[in-house]
Amino acid sequence: MAASFKTVGIYGRVRTPGIIETLKALVEFLKELGQGFLIDEKTASALDDPSLPVISRDALCSQCDLLIVVGGDGSMLHAAHAVVYDKIPVLGINRGRLGFLTDIRPDEFERIKAILGGDYRDEKRFFLQAAVSQQGKSLGKCDALNEVALIPDSVPHMSEFEIYIDDQFVCSQDSDGLIIATPTGSTAYALSGGGPILHPQLDAIVIVPMFPHSLSMRPIVIEGNREIRIVISPNNITVPRLTCDSQDYISTPPGSEITISKKQQPLHLIHPLDYDYYQSLRSKLHWGHKLHYKE
Amino acid sequence: MAASFKTVGIYGRVRTPGIIETLKALVEFLKELGQGFLIDEKTASALDDPSLPVISRDALCSQCDLLIVVGGDGSMLHAAHAVVYDKIPVLGINRGRLGFLTDIRPDEFERIKAILGGDYRDEKRFFLQAAVSQQGKSLGKCDALNEVALIPDSVPHMSEFEIYIDDQFVCSQDSDGLIIATPTGSTAYALSGGGPILHPQLDAIVIVPMFPHSLSMRPIVIEGNREIRIVISPNNITVPRLTCDSQDYISTPPGSEITISKKQQPLHLIHPLDYDYYQSLRSKLHWGHKLHYKE
Amino acid sequence: MAASFKTVGIYGRVRTPGIIETLKALVEFLKELGQGFLIDEKTASALDDPSLPVISRDALCSQCDLLIVVGGDGSMLHAAHAVVYDKIPVLGINRGRLGFLTDIRPDEFERIKAILGGDYRDEKRFFLQAAVSQQGKSLGKCDALNEVALIPDSVPHMSEFEIYIDDQFVCSQDSDGLIIATPTGSTAYALSGGGPILHPQLDAIVIVPMFPHSLSMRPIVIEGNREIRIVISPNNITVPRLTCDSQDYISTPPGSEITISKKQQPLHLIHPLDYDYYQSLRSKLHWGHKLHYKE
Amino acid sequence: MAASFKTVGIYGRVRTPGIIETLKALVEFLKELGQGFLIDEKTASALDDPSLPVISRDALCSQCDLLIVVGGDGSMLHAAHAVVYDKIPVLGINRGRLGFLTDIRPDEFERIKAILGGDYRDEKRFFLQAAVSQQGKSLGKCDALNEVALIPDSVPHMSEFEIYIDDQFVCSQDSDGLIIATPTGSTAYALSGGGPILHPQLDAIVIVPMFPHSLSMRPIVIEGNREIRIVISPNNITVPRLTCDSQDYISTPPGSEITISKKQQPLHLIHPLDYDYYQSLRSKLHWGHKLHYKE
Repeated sequence: MAASFKTVGIYGRVRTPGIIETLKALVEFLKELGQGFLIDEKTASALDDPSLPVISRDALCSQCDLLIVVGGDGSMLHAAHAVVYDKIPVLGINRGRLGFLTDIRPDEFERIKAILGGDYRDEKRFFLQAAVSQQGKSLGKCDALNEVALIPDSVPHMSEFEIYIDDQFVCSQDSDGLIIATPTGSTAYALSGGGPILHPQLDAIVIVPMFPHSLSMRPIVIEGNREIRIVISPNNITVPRLTCDSQDYISTPPGSEITISKKQQPLHLIHPLDYDYYQSLRSKLHWGHKLHYKE
Repeated sequence: MAASFKTVGIYGRVRTPGIIETLKALVEFLKELGQGFLIDEKTASALDDPSLPVISRDALCSQCDLLIVVGGDGSMLHAAHAVVYDKIPVLGINRGRLGFLTDIRPDEFERIKAILGGDYRDEKRFFLQAAVSQQGKSLGKCDALNEVALIPDSVPHMSEFEIYIDDQFVCSQDSDGLIIATPTGSTAYALSGGGPILHPQLDAIVIVPMFPHSLSMRPIVIEGNREIRIVISPNNITVPRLTCDSQDYISTPPGSEITISKKQQPLHLIHPLDYDYYQSLRSKLHWGHKLHYKE
Repeated sequence: MAASFKTVGIYGRVRTPGIIETLKALVEFLKELGQGFLIDEKTASALDDPSLPVISRDALCSQCDLLIVVGGDGSMLHAAHAVVYDKIPVLGINRGRLGFLTDIRPDEFERIKAILGGDYRDEKRFFLQAAVSQQGKSLGKCDALNEVALIPDSVPHMSEFEIYIDDQFVCSQDSDGLIIATPTGSTAYALSGGGPILHPQLDAIVIVPMFPHSLSMRPIVIEGNREIRIVISPNNITVPRLTCDSQDYISTPPGSEITISKKQQPLHLIHPLDYDYYQSLRSKLHWGHKLHYKE
Repeated sequence: MAASFKTVGIYGRVRTPGIIETLKALVEFLKELGQGFLIDEKTASALDDPSLPVISRDALCSQCDLLIVVGGDGSMLHAAHAVVYDKIPVLGINRGRLGFLTDIRPDEFERIKAILGGDYRDEKRFFLQAAVSQQGKSLGKCDALNEVALIPDSVPHMSEFEIYIDDQFVCSQDSDGLIIATPTGSTAYALSGGGPILHPQLDAIVIVPMFPHSLSMRPIVIEGNREIRIVISPNNITVPRLTCDSQDYISTPPGSEITISKKQQPLHLIHPLDYDYYQSLRSKLHWGHKLHYKE
């Protein structure tokens, strides 16, 4: 086997016993293959094997050519944020129910072997970048693979704000907030909020209102290269917050502005050659399977 | 004024008295401008003016450089089907409530004058083309600016069918049918059915299930260059129908297949330079206006 | 065993081989129990057993004290319409996936035995009665256990009509139509159309708009003893139709009126004592099961 | 005029200049009528008239026979909580857009006069009472005229919980939370969340999931006398909160239980004799007006 990836990094959130078991099996499998690898320090601490080649989480991505994430879509989100700056691709292995981002089972060794041997698809998924400012002063920034969400203050209250797209006024809105999702995020929180599914290859962003006061508000899908600007009403009583993939929280005080646009550097998501996006939809959403007609 | 359009065609569905009035005013206005024009025969018949330069509906589009449609979005849909093969642009004048396709009021003479003088935006809107076949034999074809819809038989009954995108199986479905809409059509029937709004410049198609038996079905937005294939279950009891912009009906018997894809030739929609798509959304959907804060 | 029901009627729509098998097993089981029974003629014709006590479908309900329906919710709907005038209770046995009305599996002999022995719950489910008239002249009537629906003409077109409740004007509407459902029907077609679930014991009716032009239309739930009146606009171009449980079709021409109200005589639905409505919801709608926490 | 109400209490949240103006006009009007009245101390403080008969907010309801609330539905909610224990009826006067609870305009003196003279309708609206406990120990209680809502922790996170109705298990759920609304509240927050409209006279409660992970969750409407119990999963990472009409917040830690049921003492809402509930719906939700056909 020609090694497509010189060094593989291993990352897992070791909360459940099953993850540890999967990590151990993966390590054995990579050893057998003769595949070079490094394990994130925190992940390794749960494996209880002093012989493992350990590296700090910060250094992990700069020292490897592929990151393998063991866990669910949540773990993948965390890892995605870490790898994107080092431009290394990432592969997700999911122990439990398959996720949208983690589409290989831990026992599918042949599929993992094929990928390490060079038989894979490299799919680009874009991030959104969001920045909050007030009178020209920055109040914070964050990136999102799934969605940027404007959510209520810790004491909930409807917020009033205006939406602009490429500096064109769209509408004002009274609502609990707004979800701005990528195609990747369209099957996550935005879907629960009534948004449509965007095919991962569609270059588009969807804006989904959260509990809008006006019943005629609807999700709107725009081109991926548009810039969205949200102006928080100076009359707001409370202070809504901006969150990126539910990982960061930035306060958006009355009169502040949020700008959201596509980030230049995408995530490289590695899939086996027989990857089937619609299979994930059918499996996760209980969609109808192929009809088999009686002859 | 430099005549941007040598000959303007005039088309209107003269069902209501107001349309006739608007047509008369438009004719007067074009005469004053010295703008060459021709009137569709059927439209002219309601104007009771033998001096008008009349032309048959079939010949209209081949003889003019711009078609002005007086009426609502429904009239525009009819006209759009007629002009697209002759590649001439079309301008919509709406007497009543502004539509999404007809965004000039009949009394906005200055805006019409500016357009005729060359100050306009030419926006391309794509059509979908649909074809029904069974065992390789064609059962019918039609084009849609708004949407292709698979609808129930005249005796309603849920249908069972499979959906494929670019020959990849997506899912099977029990439902009343399916709406496959362009961005143009996303604010029409698909919106009533729970679909998202697609910005007119987004190169995408949305598939909206109609009364799906499975509650986890959701609208899905895909790239505009994908081919959608629907396979009608051989077990269907009734015969659903395919319709394009609610103008044509093609039976889709058990076992038949429908293919839907983007048509190469787009519609050229003429707007004034200050055209604002979001203004149409706000006006039609009662969305919130700009906030004016007290000082 | 004290026979709670002197004579049991058997009714099944024998479309699939499985139904016949189930009917045969049921007949054997009733014979063993010494339970008197009669079989609907059409149902019997598929069983190929000349010794069976056959009766015509018309006479069936007047000669038995309990009707057992073998099939799905669709078969039950058909049977319900037949039994309601004779006031006999009905029990549903479902071969395939359990339905909302047919909640016993054919192999649950002990549960059937218990019911025949008197251990059962008799649940009342109400019907709606609908009448169409024009200028005082009747155009047709029908009853519905699930829903009365105003649906498009065979050539689909949005309809315009007014809704009144107890002679109070509610609203006018442009839409594909309207579903007026009982609690029983709230988990059927109305649910696909976005309506809420009404608990079967709630004395209420839900009105669900179908593809309404106005995006702020919402389902509305009213008391079960209200009378709903729909006035079809005299300006309608096409002729929508009224249907009861998708079994009857009555034309509703421009200017006609529809009145819908609760029927006095309810359906008596027989359940085993351990019947659990929420179990049906969880099973049919993939709702979350009981959480089992680790100790 | 026979005084139906010996003493009228006046209550208003004097945030905007318009409210003060309306309060002054109302006071003048009551003086002219010779109607006895008392003003809530805080309300009076904005009127700058030392001659007014002032009373403390706490004592207000025990000293009057009718409470007139000047403001929007939010003010009415606050007042409703105050008056219900003293069983006095309440009348809402709305300066701005009419609300669902405040359906008289301040300049409709004749309608107010008629009500004070005894020509009115007394409509009962029920409250929900909610209690949170853990291992038998009370963690808090609150009442709601609109809705009890289980909402996220101040750091948002999906919660996992079980729902029971009358001690029957309904389902478990992963979601942002749950809205449990009265008919009164069905046109408030629950409506933004996708719930149906319940007619105010319907004795029912609606449960609306907030951003449920499972796409097949739907609003469910149950009889008004049912008891709802929510059991917070012991595995929850964060601590969701219970809120009543967005006025109180009670933490619901892992393993805690919430019980929600109808409160015995209703609110008495006073309407003019010509009150029209559907008019409020049409006005607030832009529903279609009566059709006027050309002769």
